[in-house]
Amino acid sequence: MSTLAGALRESVCAANVELAGSGLVTGTFGNVSGADRNAGLIAIKPSGVPYTELTPEHMVLVSLETGEVAEGDLRPSSDTPTHLELYRAFPCGGVAHTHSEFATALAQARLPVRCMGTTHADCFRGDVPVTRPLSRAEVDGEYERNTGLVIVEAFAAGGISPEEVAAVLVANHGPFTWGEDGREAVARSEMLELLARMECTIRAIAPDAPRPAGHLVTRHFLRKHGRDAYYGQE
Amino acid sequence: MSTLAGALRESVCAANVELAGSGLVTGTFGNVSGADRNAGLIAIKPSGVPYTELTPEHMVLVSLETGEVAEGDLRPSSDTPTHLELYRAFPCGGVAHTHSEFATALAQARLPVRCMGTTHADCFRGDVPVTRPLSRAEVDGEYERNTGLVIVEAFAAGGISPEEVAAVLVANHGPFTWGEDGREAVARSEMLELLARMECTIRAIAPDAPRPAGHLVTRHFLRKHGRDAYYGQE
Amino acid sequence: MSTLAGALRESVCAANVELAGSGLVTGTFGNVSGADRNAGLIAIKPSGVPYTELTPEHMVLVSLETGEVAEGDLRPSSDTPTHLELYRAFPCGGVAHTHSEFATALAQARLPVRCMGTTHADCFRGDVPVTRPLSRAEVDGEYERNTGLVIVEAFAAGGISPEEVAAVLVANHGPFTWGEDGREAVARSEMLELLARMECTIRAIAPDAPRPAGHLVTRHFLRKHGRDAYYGQE
Amino acid sequence: MSTLAGALRESVCAANVELAGSGLVTGTFGNVSGADRNAGLIAIKPSGVPYTELTPEHMVLVSLETGEVAEGDLRPSSDTPTHLELYRAFPCGGVAHTHSEFATALAQARLPVRCMGTTHADCFRGDVPVTRPLSRAEVDGEYERNTGLVIVEAFAAGGISPEEVAAVLVANHGPFTWGEDGREAVARSEMLELLARMECTIRAIAPDAPRPAGHLVTRHFLRKHGRDAYYGQE
Repeated sequence: MSTLAGALRESVCAANVELAGSGLVTGTFGNVSGADRNAGLIAIKPSGVPYTELTPEHMVLVSLETGEVAEGDLRPSSDTPTHLELYRAFPCGGVAHTHSEFATALAQARLPVRCMGTTHADCFRGDVPVTRPLSRAEVDGEYERNTGLVIVEAFAAGGISPEEVAAVLVANHGPFTWGEDGREAVARSEMLELLARMECTIRAIAPDAPRPAGHLVTRHFLRKHGRDAYYGQE
Repeated sequence: MSTLAGALRESVCAANVELAGSGLVTGTFGNVSGADRNAGLIAIKPSGVPYTELTPEHMVLVSLETGEVAEGDLRPSSDTPTHLELYRAFPCGGVAHTHSEFATALAQARLPVRCMGTTHADCFRGDVPVTRPLSRAEVDGEYERNTGLVIVEAFAAGGISPEEVAAVLVANHGPFTWGEDGREAVARSEMLELLARMECTIRAIAPDAPRPAGHLVTRHFLRKHGRDAYYGQE
Repeated sequence: MSTLAGALRESVCAANVELAGSGLVTGTFGNVSGADRNAGLIAIKPSGVPYTELTPEHMVLVSLETGEVAEGDLRPSSDTPTHLELYRAFPCGGVAHTHSEFATALAQARLPVRCMGTTHADCFRGDVPVTRPLSRAEVDGEYERNTGLVIVEAFAAGGISPEEVAAVLVANHGPFTWGEDGREAVARSEMLELLARMECTIRAIAPDAPRPAGHLVTRHFLRKHGRDAYYGQE
Repeated sequence: MSTLAGALRESVCAANVELAGSGLVTGTFGNVSGADRNAGLIAIKPSGVPYTELTPEHMVLVSLETGEVAEGDLRPSSDTPTHLELYRAFPCGGVAHTHSEFATALAQARLPVRCMGTTHADCFRGDVPVTRPLSRAEVDGEYERNTGLVIVEAFAAGGISPEEVAAVLVANHGPFTWGEDGREAVARSEMLELLARMECTIRAIAPDAPRPAGHLVTRHFLRKHGRDAYYGQE
């Protein structure tokens, strides 16, 4: 029975159940984690357990610093080292990974989710980038950790803020999203999939459609985020 | 507790709940309003409140003339100034706004929903137009109000009747529809999305397909609308 | 209260309810009829009545010969004259009409549903044809009756058997299907939509894909239809 | 009442019910079988019986060696001879056949489901091949048996392992999948359909997208399969 971090286990379990209900996952694909940075821990879904059976006790606690299992009887998601690199580099409290259909199709085509309008700008300030492919050495070595590192590299190389664009496509793999907690990461995975669907439609019917003006993107992003946001209640 | 316009609050709340059940909205996107022109008021969804929690009391009453909140504890939808301009220019009693997937994809590609057949003509007499993009000054200034004005401009410039074509795509943004009340506006948002889906398919497989003859469009529109309509019961 | 043809009213009402549950209709679009050829009557859905409210008493009985209402308080579907022409020319006992998304998109693009494989051949022996557009005189005159006549013309002109291909796309309008009764007509509308979806996908990704050999089409059609059928039980 | 192979009947019936719930089948299309190799039997769905009525007693037991019905009052699926050839050539315990929309569309276009990323590699080690079309003699003769033989030929000719790629598209027909039992075959039909959907999207928007590196495919396949698998629990 769990003793450490009960609230974290519960919220991460709830976020995984939400992911399963979102229609974004097939089989046991996908996983959500959440961090308690004061405790130096993340909680993450165990590997290969059906979503319908998940309880908070199944969540595995892993040390943010060492990557070792701190508590839990099950093996953590095989993608755990990717999550850990994201927590180390980005100021977030939750990470989600799916193989959602259209985001994954774009990742497989190595195409970004371009910012083509206000639905996108309400959520992400600019294109959701796609990473470079991993080298043979990166795949043969610590593959999952290197997946995290190549994401971090994409943001550094592109001068992209992980707070303004809280999502990425890993080349030939699929999307990762992040946020304040696991739930926000899941909500962003849902938005990313909707944006990816629209991007695939636009690429099919109007590949040369002009981009929206920068001032429109800025206005919409800042309407919902930051100091002068005026969307929602307070 | 509401005292003014209880019936309006109820019908607008119901229309918003219908919108949420239509599959056209993701998260808290989208909003429906309805007008009581005798009282000089509109009721509109509050900003950023989840659809599952909406009650008639949440609806915000706003003056049609001044745009000020007349009654309600919550902040009205941030799109309220757009709705107000539509009520001022068009003879309608309800307005709906969504980010529905295919209508939004076309708006992002700056392509109209062309009238390609009788399903379209049963609902809209001709193409659903797309606005011009807003200028930097229009976005940096009263953005939401200018969104309404650019819609009105598109109808005036194109010589389009807002009673015969009760829908528009705002460039790089998404669709607005209107009707006798909020419910009819929502029903038209659903029809518009179906028409947008078919338009995207046609553009993908037969971009040069010929238009239907004008007499077919006229016949179908007038079969359901106007003095000589012979569809439905009386 | 109905006295004539109670069984026909019930089966046609059930077929209309099935159509509504099939996901092929939006709003009040679509209608199913069924014939009792001995009584010289068809039963058909009333015009513009929501599917959720339909009862057998709502069905309208119409004379096959004269097209006059024989019994019923409501106005029959505005598409009734189209149905009547199909019953007069084709040996069928039920007719269904929808605006299902992909069949309608192909009708709007004036493209047939080509027979590209065994799923199609199991149901229809060859392409589902598209009619020619109606002339101005045909639209301005008895429009719905002329829609039926142009369908019959397409089968005669193309040498197509309405028993082997029990479906058609009306140019810039949508699909009609038929069968032994209303239920079979509805089941064929569902199959036609699936085939239309696949046809749209193939046209998007491989417009020049080769047709299946004629012997494969024949084998599959005859496996399920005709004297030597060996699919199903007895 | 059944006496032989009750457990096999039950598991095969359950797999057929799962298939029906997967959204992959329309009408009575599709079928699942399972083998008891010690008993020399397979159990398979009867021909043309609605999925909603299936019980274990309906399953038909057929001899693996002779193809004769060993027990059961109903006629076995007309595709039974195809299943039998797969059991004879491939080391599997279950086979599933569907007409799922996108896998069938690719089969009709005679295009393989290319391995474009890790979602595919997690399940199949390389492209899912498409068979050659059957000749007139093969169709006019033992058609269903020849369908099985042409599948086996495709794997032999392509040097493909049926254990590493447990799925195929039959040209102008549709997909077959296999696995340890009927349930695993059904799960693979679901994965194949997701992969086919993504493949159709990629072909529409980026037909020349580069393939993933071989080392990435190998890594993902072996992460879930074989001796050194490290996905899941134990």
